[in-house]
Amino acid sequence: MELKMRLRNKPRAAGEIAAHPEWITITPEDHKGQWQTKFAQPQPLCVEVGSGKGQFIIEMAKAHPDKNFIGIELQPSVIIMILERQMVAQLPNLFLIQANGNRLTDFFAPAEVAELYLNFSDPWPKTRHAKRRLTHANFLKMYEIVLQPAGLFQFKTDNRGLFEFSLQSFNAYGMVFDDLSLDLHHSAQNETNIETEYEHRFSQMGHPIYYIQAHFKTTD
Amino acid sequence: MELKMRLRNKPRAAGEIAAHPEWITITPEDHKGQWQTKFAQPQPLCVEVGSGKGQFIIEMAKAHPDKNFIGIELQPSVIIMILERQMVAQLPNLFLIQANGNRLTDFFAPAEVAELYLNFSDPWPKTRHAKRRLTHANFLKMYEIVLQPAGLFQFKTDNRGLFEFSLQSFNAYGMVFDDLSLDLHHSAQNETNIETEYEHRFSQMGHPIYYIQAHFKTTD
Repeated sequence: MELKMRLRNKPRAAGEIAAHPEWITITPEDHKGQWQTKFAQPQPLCVEVGSGKGQFIIEMAKAHPDKNFIGIELQPSVIIMILERQMVAQLPNLFLIQANGNRLTDFFAPAEVAELYLNFSDPWPKTRHAKRRLTHANFLKMYEIVLQPAGLFQFKTDNRGLFEFSLQSFNAYGMVFDDLSLDLHHSAQNETNIETEYEHRFSQMGHPIYYIQAHFKTTD
Repeated sequence: MELKMRLRNKPRAAGEIAAHPEWITITPEDHKGQWQTKFAQPQPLCVEVGSGKGQFIIEMAKAHPDKNFIGIELQPSVIIMILERQMVAQLPNLFLIQANGNRLTDFFAPAEVAELYLNFSDPWPKTRHAKRRLTHANFLKMYEIVLQPAGLFQFKTDNRGLFEFSLQSFNAYGMVFDDLSLDLHHSAQNETNIETEYEHRFSQMGHPIYYIQAHFKTTD
Protein backbone atom coordinates (compact mmCIF):
# COMPACT_ATOMS: atom_id res chain seq x y z
CA MET A 1 0.00 0.00 0.00
CA GLU A 2 2.73 2.40 1.09
CA LEU A 3 4.92 1.13 -1.76
CA LYS A 4 2.13 1.47 -4.32
CA MET A 5 1.55 5.05 -3.31
CA ARG A 6 5.24 5.84 -3.64
CA LEU A 7 5.49 4.27 -7.08
CA ARG A 8 2.44 6.12 -8.28
CA ASN A 9 3.77 9.41 -6.95
CA LYS A 10 7.25 9.05 -8.35
CA PRO A 11 6.75 10.67 -11.78
CA ARG A 12 4.78 13.49 -10.21
CA ALA A 13 7.53 13.98 -7.61
CA ALA A 14 10.22 14.14 -10.30
CA GLY A 15 8.22 16.73 -12.23
CA GLU A 16 7.64 18.86 -9.19
CA ILE A 17 11.33 18.73 -8.22
CA ALA A 18 12.42 19.68 -11.74
CA ALA A 19 9.99 22.60 -11.72
CA HIS A 20 11.58 24.23 -8.64
CA PRO A 21 15.32 24.70 -9.12
CA GLU A 22 15.10 27.71 -6.79
CA TRP A 23 14.42 25.36 -3.84
CA ILE A 24 15.77 21.95 -4.77
CA THR A 25 18.35 20.13 -6.88
CA ILE A 26 19.05 16.55 -7.91
CA THR A 27 22.59 17.39 -9.11
CA PRO A 28 24.28 18.74 -5.99
CA GLU A 29 27.70 18.07 -7.52
CA ASP A 30 27.11 21.12 -9.71
CA HIS A 31 26.99 23.40 -6.68
CA LYS A 32 29.99 22.04 -4.79
CA GLY A 33 31.85 24.92 -3.17
CA GLN A 34 29.16 27.38 -4.36
CA TRP A 35 26.28 26.71 -2.01
CA GLN A 36 26.17 30.21 -0.58
CA THR A 37 24.93 31.50 -3.97
CA LYS A 38 21.73 29.51 -3.41
CA PHE A 39 20.72 31.63 -0.42
CA ALA A 40 19.61 35.20 0.19
CA GLN A 41 22.90 35.88 1.95
CA PRO A 42 26.09 34.02 2.89
CA GLN A 43 25.71 32.51 6.37
CA PRO A 44 27.06 29.38 8.15
CA LEU A 45 25.96 26.34 6.17
CA CYS A 46 24.09 23.66 8.14
CA VAL A 47 23.31 20.28 6.57
CA GLU A 48 20.95 17.50 7.60
CA VAL A 49 21.58 14.05 6.12
CA GLY A 50 18.26 12.22 5.78
CA SER A 51 15.61 14.89 6.23
CA GLY A 52 12.50 12.72 5.85
CA LYS A 53 9.39 14.88 5.76
CA GLY A 54 11.44 17.88 6.86
CA GLN A 55 10.04 18.94 10.20
CA PHE A 56 13.51 19.28 11.73
CA ILE A 57 15.16 21.22 8.91
CA ILE A 58 12.17 23.53 8.40
CA GLU A 59 11.89 24.36 12.11
CA MET A 60 15.66 24.85 12.32
CA ALA A 61 15.58 27.24 9.35
CA LYS A 62 12.78 29.21 10.99
CA ALA A 63 14.48 29.25 14.40
CA HIS A 64 17.89 30.27 13.04
CA PRO A 65 17.51 32.91 10.30
CA ASP A 66 21.23 33.67 10.74
CA LYS A 67 22.23 30.29 9.26
CA ASN A 68 21.65 28.62 5.89
CA PHE A 69 20.17 25.12 5.86
CA ILE A 70 20.31 22.25 3.40
CA GLY A 71 18.12 19.18 3.78
CA ILE A 72 19.22 16.00 1.97
CA GLU A 73 16.73 13.22 1.35
CA LEU A 74 16.93 10.31 -1.09
CA GLN A 75 13.22 9.52 -1.56
CA PRO A 76 11.59 11.83 -4.15
CA SER A 77 8.10 11.10 -2.83
CA VAL A 78 9.24 12.09 0.68
CA ILE A 79 11.31 15.18 -0.13
CA ILE A 80 8.48 16.74 -2.13
CA MET A 81 6.62 17.03 1.17
CA ILE A 82 9.43 19.36 2.29
CA LEU A 83 9.38 21.11 -1.06
CA GLU A 84 5.64 21.72 -0.85
CA ARG A 85 5.99 23.20 2.63
CA GLN A 86 8.87 25.37 1.42
CA MET A 87 6.80 26.62 -1.53
CA VAL A 88 4.41 28.04 1.07
CA ALA A 89 6.97 29.13 3.67
CA GLN A 90 9.48 30.56 1.14
CA LEU A 91 12.29 30.44 3.69
CA PRO A 92 15.27 32.32 2.23
CA ASN A 93 17.70 30.14 4.19
CA LEU A 94 16.50 26.67 3.16
CA PHE A 95 17.53 24.57 0.16
CA LEU A 96 16.94 20.90 -0.64
CA ILE A 97 18.98 18.11 -2.21
CA GLN A 98 17.30 14.98 -3.52
CA ALA A 99 20.18 12.52 -3.54
CA ASN A 100 21.90 9.85 -1.48
CA GLY A 101 23.54 11.52 1.52
CA ASN A 102 26.35 8.97 1.56
CA ARG A 103 28.29 10.95 -1.08
CA LEU A 104 28.76 14.17 0.88
CA THR A 105 32.29 14.80 -0.37
CA ASP A 106 30.89 14.95 -3.92
CA PHE A 107 28.38 17.59 -2.85
CA PHE A 108 30.42 19.86 -0.61
CA ALA A 109 33.90 21.34 -0.83
CA PRO A 110 36.32 20.74 2.04
CA ALA A 111 35.31 22.85 5.07
CA GLU A 112 32.21 24.20 3.30
CA VAL A 113 29.87 22.99 6.07
CA ALA A 114 29.60 24.58 9.53
CA GLU A 115 27.16 22.14 11.12
CA LEU A 116 26.09 18.61 10.23
CA TYR A 117 23.05 16.77 11.62
CA LEU A 118 22.12 13.10 11.56
CA ASN A 119 18.67 12.35 12.92
CA PHE A 120 17.29 8.84 13.44
CA SER A 121 19.47 7.28 10.77
CA ASP A 122 18.86 3.69 9.70
CA PRO A 123 20.30 1.49 12.50
CA TRP A 124 21.38 -1.38 10.19
CA PRO A 125 21.28 -3.71 13.22
CA LYS A 126 23.05 -6.68 11.65
CA THR A 127 26.79 -6.76 12.35
CA ARG A 128 27.59 -7.47 8.72
CA HIS A 129 25.86 -4.20 7.78
CA ALA A 130 27.87 -2.08 10.25
CA LYS A 131 29.61 -0.26 7.39
CA ARG A 132 26.27 1.07 6.19
CA ARG A 133 25.59 2.88 9.46
CA LEU A 134 26.04 6.61 8.90
CA THR A 135 28.19 6.82 12.03
CA HIS A 136 30.73 4.26 10.75
CA ALA A 137 34.32 5.52 10.48
CA ASN A 138 34.07 5.55 6.66
CA PHE A 139 31.33 8.18 6.88
CA LEU A 140 33.03 10.09 9.68
CA LYS A 141 35.97 10.54 7.34
CA MET A 142 33.65 12.30 4.88
CA TYR A 143 32.06 14.46 7.57
CA GLU A 144 35.50 15.50 8.75
CA ILE A 145 36.41 16.63 5.23
CA VAL A 146 33.30 18.71 4.52
CA LEU A 147 33.08 20.23 8.02
CA GLN A 148 34.98 23.34 9.01
CA PRO A 149 37.72 22.74 11.59
CA ALA A 150 35.91 22.14 14.89
CA GLY A 151 32.56 22.35 13.04
CA LEU A 152 29.55 21.01 14.92
CA PHE A 153 28.38 17.44 14.44
CA GLN A 154 25.05 16.43 16.01
CA PHE A 155 23.43 13.03 16.16
CA LYS A 156 20.09 11.88 17.59
CA THR A 157 18.59 8.42 17.65
CA ASP A 158 16.15 6.29 19.59
CA ASN A 159 18.06 3.15 18.66
CA ARG A 160 20.15 1.97 21.59
CA GLY A 161 22.34 -0.38 19.57
CA LEU A 162 23.11 2.32 17.03
CA PHE A 163 23.96 4.84 19.74
CA GLU A 164 26.24 2.38 21.55
CA PHE A 165 28.00 1.65 18.26
CA SER A 166 28.21 5.35 17.45
CA LEU A 167 29.74 6.38 20.78
CA GLN A 168 32.47 3.80 20.26
CA SER A 169 32.90 4.83 16.64
CA PHE A 170 33.19 8.57 17.47
CA ASN A 171 35.57 7.80 20.34
CA ALA A 172 37.77 5.53 18.26
CA TYR A 173 37.92 8.15 15.52
CA GLY A 174 39.19 10.72 18.01
CA MET A 175 36.12 12.97 17.98
CA VAL A 176 35.61 15.23 20.97
CA PHE A 177 32.29 14.92 22.83
CA ASP A 178 30.94 18.39 23.56
CA ASP A 179 27.54 17.48 24.96
CA LEU A 180 25.46 14.36 25.31
CA SER A 181 22.24 13.08 26.80
CA LEU A 182 20.96 9.56 27.27
CA ASP A 183 17.39 10.83 27.65
CA LEU A 184 17.19 14.06 25.71
CA HIS A 185 13.52 14.75 26.38
CA HIS A 186 14.16 14.72 30.12
CA SER A 187 17.33 16.81 29.96
CA ALA A 188 18.15 20.50 30.11
CA GLN A 189 19.26 20.30 26.46
CA ASN A 190 15.65 19.65 25.43
CA GLU A 191 14.82 23.33 25.86
CA THR A 192 16.47 24.13 22.53
CA ASN A 193 15.77 20.75 20.91
CA ILE A 194 13.85 20.71 17.64
CA GLU A 195 12.06 17.41 17.08
CA THR A 196 11.75 15.34 13.95
CA GLU A 197 8.35 13.80 13.13
CA TYR A 198 9.67 10.38 14.09
CA GLU A 199 11.20 11.65 17.32
CA HIS A 200 7.92 13.20 18.42
CA ARG A 201 5.99 9.98 17.86
CA PHE A 202 8.63 7.76 19.40
CA SER A 203 9.27 9.77 22.54
CA GLN A 204 5.55 9.89 23.27
CA MET A 205 5.80 6.13 23.71
CA GLY A 206 8.12 6.80 26.66
CA HIS A 207 11.38 5.61 25.10
CA PRO A 208 14.58 7.63 25.58
CA ILE A 209 16.10 9.70 22.79
CA TYR A 210 19.90 9.58 22.70
CA TYR A 211 21.77 12.72 21.71
CA ILE A 212 25.35 13.84 21.18
CA GLN A 213 27.16 16.92 19.94
CA ALA A 214 30.78 16.46 19.00
CA HIS A 215 33.53 17.85 16.81
CA PHE A 216 36.55 16.55 14.99
CA LYS A 217 39.94 17.30 16.46
CA THR A 218 41.87 19.85 14.46
CA THR A 219 45.29 18.51 13.62
CA ASP A 220 47.29 21.69 14.04
CA MET B 1 18.74 4.82 62.86
CA GLU B 2 21.16 3.73 60.14
CA LEU B 3 23.70 6.20 61.51
CA LYS B 4 23.21 5.05 65.11
CA MET B 5 23.80 1.46 64.11
CA ARG B 6 26.99 2.39 62.32
CA LEU B 7 28.32 4.36 65.26
CA ARG B 8 27.55 1.58 67.68
CA ASN B 9 29.27 -0.94 65.41
CA LYS B 10 32.39 1.08 64.78
CA PRO B 11 34.56 -0.09 67.70
CA ARG B 12 33.57 -3.71 67.08
CA ALA B 13 34.37 -3.30 63.36
CA ALA B 14 37.81 -1.86 64.13
CA GLY B 15 38.57 -4.76 66.46
CA GLU B 16 37.48 -7.35 63.94
CA ILE B 17 39.53 -5.72 61.18
CA ALA B 18 42.64 -5.59 63.38
CA ALA B 19 42.20 -9.26 64.25
CA HIS B 20 42.38 -10.42 60.60
CA PRO B 21 45.52 -9.11 58.94
CA GLU B 22 45.46 -12.18 56.69
CA TRP B 23 42.33 -10.82 54.92
CA ILE B 24 42.29 -7.07 55.46
CA THR B 25 44.46 -4.02 56.08
CA ILE B 26 43.91 -0.39 57.07
CA THR B 27 47.45 0.61 56.03
CA PRO B 28 47.58 -0.28 52.34
CA GLU B 29 50.57 2.06 51.86
CA ASP B 30 52.68 -0.61 53.59
CA HIS B 31 51.97 -3.09 50.79
CA LYS B 32 52.49 -0.80 47.81
CA GLY B 33 54.22 -2.74 45.05
CA GLN B 34 54.04 -5.94 47.15
CA TRP B 35 50.41 -6.98 46.83
CA GLN B 36 51.12 -10.33 45.20
CA THR B 37 52.64 -11.55 48.50
CA LYS B 38 49.16 -11.29 50.05
CA PHE B 39 47.77 -14.03 47.81
CA ALA B 40 48.23 -17.77 47.40
CA GLN B 41 49.94 -17.15 44.07
CA PRO B 42 50.87 -14.21 41.82
CA GLN B 43 48.06 -13.52 39.34
CA PRO B 44 46.67 -10.41 37.59
CA LEU B 45 45.60 -7.93 40.26
CA CYS B 46 42.00 -6.67 40.00
CA VAL B 47 40.80 -3.81 42.21
CA GLU B 48 37.32 -2.54 43.02
CA VAL B 49 37.04 0.99 44.39
CA GLY B 50 34.03 1.18 46.74
CA SER B 51 33.09 -2.44 47.41
CA GLY B 52 30.12 -1.85 49.70
CA LYS B 53 28.89 -5.12 51.15
CA GLY B 54 31.09 -7.02 48.71
CA GLN B 55 28.75 -9.06 46.54
CA PHE B 56 30.56 -8.03 43.35
CA ILE B 57 34.14 -8.61 44.52
CA ILE B 58 33.30 -11.92 46.24
CA GLU B 59 31.47 -13.29 43.20
CA MET B 60 34.26 -12.07 40.92
CA ALA B 61 36.88 -13.80 43.08
CA LYS B 62 34.87 -17.03 42.97
CA ALA B 63 34.27 -16.79 39.20
CA HIS B 64 37.89 -15.95 38.35
CA PRO B 65 40.26 -18.07 40.45
CA ASP B 66 43.03 -17.15 37.98
CA LYS B 67 43.03 -13.52 39.15
CA ASN B 68 43.69 -11.83 42.49
CA PHE B 69 41.10 -9.39 43.81
CA ILE B 70 41.24 -6.44 46.17
CA GLY B 71 38.11 -4.75 47.47
CA ILE B 72 38.46 -1.22 48.83
CA GLU B 73 35.77 0.22 51.08
CA LEU B 74 35.93 3.21 53.41
CA GLN B 75 33.19 2.33 55.90
CA PRO B 76 34.45 -0.08 58.61
CA SER B 77 30.92 -1.16 59.49
CA VAL B 78 30.29 -2.03 55.83
CA ILE B 79 33.57 -3.72 54.96
CA ILE B 80 33.33 -6.09 57.92
CA MET B 81 30.35 -7.64 56.13
CA ILE B 82 32.78 -8.61 53.37
CA LEU B 83 35.33 -9.70 55.94
CA GLU B 84 32.83 -11.93 57.69
CA ARG B 85 31.86 -13.58 54.39
CA GLN B 86 35.53 -14.04 53.54
CA MET B 87 36.20 -15.67 56.95
CA VAL B 88 33.74 -18.34 55.87
CA ALA B 89 34.65 -18.52 52.17
CA GLN B 90 38.43 -18.32 52.73
CA LEU B 91 39.00 -17.31 49.11
CA PRO B 92 42.76 -17.45 48.44
CA ASN B 93 42.45 -14.70 45.81
CA LEU B 94 40.61 -12.02 47.80
CA PHE B 95 42.04 -9.29 50.03
CA LEU B 96 40.41 -6.19 51.54
CA ILE B 97 41.47 -2.61 52.15
CA GLN B 98 39.57 -0.41 54.58
CA ALA B 99 40.56 3.05 53.39
CA ASN B 100 39.50 5.91 51.13
CA GLY B 101 39.80 4.73 47.53
CA ASN B 102 40.65 8.23 46.32
CA ARG B 103 44.34 7.72 47.20
CA LEU B 104 45.04 4.79 44.87
CA THR B 105 48.53 5.99 43.91
CA ASP B 106 49.52 5.74 47.59
CA PHE B 107 48.31 2.14 47.70
CA PHE B 108 49.57 0.72 44.40
CA ALA B 109 52.84 1.00 42.51
CA PRO B 110 52.73 2.20 38.90
CA ALA B 111 51.33 -0.53 36.62
CA GLU B 112 50.68 -2.86 39.57
CA VAL B 113 46.96 -3.23 38.71
CA ALA B 114 45.61 -5.24 35.74
CA GLU B 115 41.91 -4.37 36.09
CA LEU B 116 40.06 -1.61 37.91
CA TYR B 117 36.32 -1.54 38.66
CA LEU B 118 34.07 1.31 39.72
CA ASN B 119 30.53 0.24 40.56
CA PHE B 120 27.72 2.66 41.37
CA SER B 121 30.01 5.39 42.63
CA ASP B 122 28.56 8.44 44.35
CA PRO B 123 27.09 10.63 41.56
CA TRP B 124 27.82 13.96 43.29
CA PRO B 125 25.09 15.58 41.17
CA LYS B 126 25.89 19.22 41.94
CA THR B 127 28.14 20.84 39.35
CA ARG B 128 30.36 22.35 42.03
CA HIS B 129 31.09 18.80 43.27
CA ALA B 130 32.13 17.47 39.85
CA LYS B 131 35.72 17.06 41.03
CA ARG B 132 34.58 14.55 43.65
CA ARG B 133 33.14 12.19 41.04
CA LEU B 134 35.43 9.16 40.76
CA THR B 135 35.35 9.49 36.96
CA HIS B 136 36.71 13.05 37.00
CA ALA B 137 39.98 13.59 35.12
CA ASN B 138 41.89 13.98 38.39
CA PHE B 139 40.98 10.40 39.34
CA LEU B 140 41.53 9.08 35.82
CA LYS B 141 45.10 10.35 36.12
CA MET B 142 45.56 8.08 39.18
CA TYR B 143 43.95 5.08 37.50
CA GLU B 144 46.21 5.53 34.51
CA ILE B 145 49.26 5.43 36.78
CA VAL B 146 48.35 2.31 38.76
CA LEU B 147 46.98 0.38 35.76
CA GLN B 148 49.18 -1.65 33.46
CA PRO B 149 49.48 -0.28 29.93
CA ALA B 150 46.13 -1.02 28.25
CA GLY B 151 44.84 -2.43 31.56
CA LEU B 152 41.09 -2.85 31.81
CA PHE B 153 38.91 -0.15 33.36
CA GLN B 154 35.24 -0.97 33.99
CA PHE B 155 32.48 1.30 35.23
CA LYS B 156 28.80 0.65 35.99
CA THR B 157 26.17 3.03 37.25
CA ASP B 158 22.43 3.55 37.26
CA ASN B 159 22.89 7.31 37.44
CA ARG B 160 22.29 8.86 34.03
CA GLY B 161 23.90 12.20 34.87
CA LEU B 162 27.02 10.50 36.18
CA PHE B 163 27.28 8.28 33.11
CA GLU B 164 26.83 11.21 30.73
CA PHE B 165 29.54 13.11 32.60
CA SER B 166 31.78 10.03 32.65
CA LEU B 167 31.53 9.33 28.92
CA GLN B 168 32.62 12.89 28.24
CA SER B 169 35.35 12.70 30.86
CA PHE B 170 36.78 9.39 29.51
CA ASN B 171 36.59 10.69 25.94
CA ALA B 172 38.26 14.01 26.78
CA TYR B 173 41.01 12.16 28.63
CA GLY B 174 41.71 10.11 25.51
CA MET B 175 40.56 6.76 26.88
CA VAL B 176 39.55 4.12 24.34
CA PHE B 177 36.04 2.65 24.65
CA ASP B 178 36.24 -1.14 24.27
CA ASP B 179 32.64 -2.01 25.07
CA LEU B 180 29.57 -0.24 26.35
CA SER B 181 25.90 -0.76 27.03
CA LEU B 182 23.16 1.73 27.82
CA ASP B 183 20.98 -1.04 29.25
CA LEU B 184 23.31 -3.71 30.52
CA HIS B 185 20.63 -6.05 31.85
CA HIS B 186 19.07 -6.27 28.40
CA SER B 187 22.35 -6.67 26.52
CA ALA B 188 24.48 -9.61 25.44
CA GLN B 189 27.15 -8.42 27.91
CA ASN B 190 24.85 -9.31 30.80
CA GLU B 191 25.65 -13.00 30.39
CA THR B 192 28.99 -12.48 32.13
CA ASN B 193 27.86 -9.60 34.32
CA ILE B 194 28.23 -9.96 38.08
CA GLU B 195 25.80 -7.75 39.97
CA THR B 196 26.35 -5.62 43.02
CA GLU B 197 23.67 -5.67 45.75
CA TYR B 198 22.58 -2.19 44.73
CA GLU B 199 22.49 -3.08 41.04
CA HIS B 200 20.22 -6.04 41.69
CA ARG B 201 17.73 -3.98 43.65
CA PHE B 202 17.81 -1.06 41.26
CA SER B 203 17.45 -2.97 38.02
CA GLN B 204 14.44 -4.85 39.40
CA MET B 205 12.72 -1.47 39.43
CA GLY B 206 13.09 -1.45 35.64
CA HIS B 207 15.75 1.27 35.36
CA PRO B 208 18.66 0.84 32.93
CA ILE B 209 22.17 0.05 34.15
CA TYR B 210 24.89 1.87 32.19
CA TYR B 211 28.16 0.07 31.57
CA ILE B 212 31.50 0.73 29.91
CA GLN B 213 34.84 -1.01 29.52
CA ALA B 214 37.73 1.14 28.41
CA HIS B 215 41.49 1.45 28.55
CA PHE B 216 44.06 4.20 28.61
CA LYS B 217 46.02 4.84 25.46
CA THR B 218 49.59 3.70 25.73
CA THR B 219 51.93 6.51 24.75
CA ASP B 220 54.50 4.53 22.87
